[in-house]
Amino acid sequence: MVSTDHDTLRHAPLSQVRAAIRDGTYRAHTAGLGAGYLQANLAILPSAHALDFMRFCQRNPKPCPLVGVSDTGNPMMTTLGHDIDIRTDVPAYTIYRDGTLTGTATDIADLWSDDMVAFALGCSFTFENALMQAGIPMWHIDNDTTVPMFRSSIDTVPAGPFSGKMVVSMRAVAPGHLDQVRAISQRFPLAHGGPVHWGDPAEIGIHDPQRPDWGDPAPIPDGHVPVFWACGVTPQVALESASPPICITHTPGHMLITDIPEDAETAILSQTPQ
Amino acid sequence: MVSTDHDTLRHAPLSQVRAAIRDGTYRAHTAGLGAGYLQANLAILPSAHALDFMRFCQRNPKPCPLVGVSDTGNPMMTTLGHDIDIRTDVPAYTIYRDGTLTGTATDIADLWSDDMVAFALGCSFTFENALMQAGIPMWHIDNDTTVPMFRSSIDTVPAGPFSGKMVVSMRAVAPGHLDQVRAISQRFPLAHGGPVHWGDPAEIGIHDPQRPDWGDPAPIPDGHVPVFWACGVTPQVALESASPPICITHTPGHMLITDIPEDAETAILSQTPQ
Repeated sequence: MVSTDHDTLRHAPLSQVRAAIRDGTYRAHTAGLGAGYLQANLAILPSAHALDFMRFCQRNPKPCPLVGVSDTGNPMMTTLGHDIDIRTDVPAYTIYRDGTLTGTATDIADLWSDDMVAFALGCSFTFENALMQAGIPMWHIDNDTTVPMFRSSIDTVPAGPFSGKMVVSMRAVAPGHLDQVRAISQRFPLAHGGPVHWGDPAEIGIHDPQRPDWGDPAPIPDGHVPVFWACGVTPQVALESASPPICITHTPGHMLITDIPEDAETAILSQTPQ
Repeated sequence: MVSTDHDTLRHAPLSQVRAAIRDGTYRAHTAGLGAGYLQANLAILPSAHALDFMRFCQRNPKPCPLVGVSDTGNPMMTTLGHDIDIRTDVPAYTIYRDGTLTGTATDIADLWSDDMVAFALGCSFTFENALMQAGIPMWHIDNDTTVPMFRSSIDTVPAGPFSGKMVVSMRAVAPGHLDQVRAISQRFPLAHGGPVHWGDPAEIGIHDPQRPDWGDPAPIPDGHVPVFWACGVTPQVALESASPPICITHTPGHMLITDIPEDAETAILSQTPQ
């Protein structure tokens, strides 16, 4: 098996990217790949937990924007692509048993069962791309680090066994850009939408913005405003607290790349406007 | 019991409207009531059908924009209002057994069970209000008729036993208003979003626009463009085809009025932006 690197795939068509992920030759993060296509977080659960998890997503649309749900036992994500097999088409998976991380994998064909449901949730790449296209710099991308993420004091709306605090990501924004940043990101409800907070981090329970709970620290230059978005790590925290017998997620940064254009009105293949 | 009429409630606060609906003194349609608040279609199903119906809504977000889902057996719609009891807070209900309409009711306290799940779906009132505020006339409202609705040739994306053609509503628009109408309605993804078709009705299987399948005929003045939106009758058609043992919907036009402002970013009480 020949491994494929990020630089090679950066300018490759989506079909080639997906093939390299599917055959296991590409196992790294997906930032910057499949340009223009919606990327998604992944959560796979036994069907007994599916209705409650789907309710949790519906009730927490900013951290958990549902973009696709498989049929029970069917690994094909038919509404997100013409040929997406959720067992192989994510570069790296993380496996939890009873709420505890027990391993990672580059495909999950041996773990998939007739009782499983796969959920795809929108991710921040979409609004970050839109912000950068509008000339708003993203420090963590320019410096090749992971965006800082924090467990906030904001409660999610519980559903069955799923609950917990909202995880938020932080980006420092020049004050003159704040209104534009809010307006642009609000246009992407399937990618966390507008920010949930801006200004004093302590107001949402963040006491040291230089010590993120996940990701890397990022500077807040003098006069810049820290802006906080609901983050796709929130459902992972809720999944850990619900402790289903098995749960499979993508490994952070290693997302599902869909066939849905990033600016589509809906995340459904056959309902994109004529 | 003193009956309350539409004109009395038109300028009443939401709490008074809801109280009159709850105690059964108001049993008529809700157009123009609770101004500024999101109204919703209703579907109540046994829990065995809930996951498939929720998948159907996720896969068909234009006809079936999910705005609220109850816990199984809990009649309080906690994310849509501070005190919404789905058994009493809709003016008129329609009851289906095995897919067949068997009756109507003004409350369903005797039919609700511990096994039921209530789904609220956004409705066209929201984008119609926004269009009228922008100076776009709505002929069916000005003439006190029901918008014409048609069974189109557009297939919905099936989920389990739920499937069928998309039902669409039609509004004739002056050509100079078309772009504005599309842009405004697209801003309301929780209220059917942008139109699914405009122009020749035959392209979506509608051969006589003067003979709607539901609602009243409406003129298409010379030079006007017929514009078609996904319609909230679509899930009712899918529910009839799925034939659950029991299903309760609102009676057309007799909607659930929520506490969510019509222009909120999400339909979740506790997540409206600060």
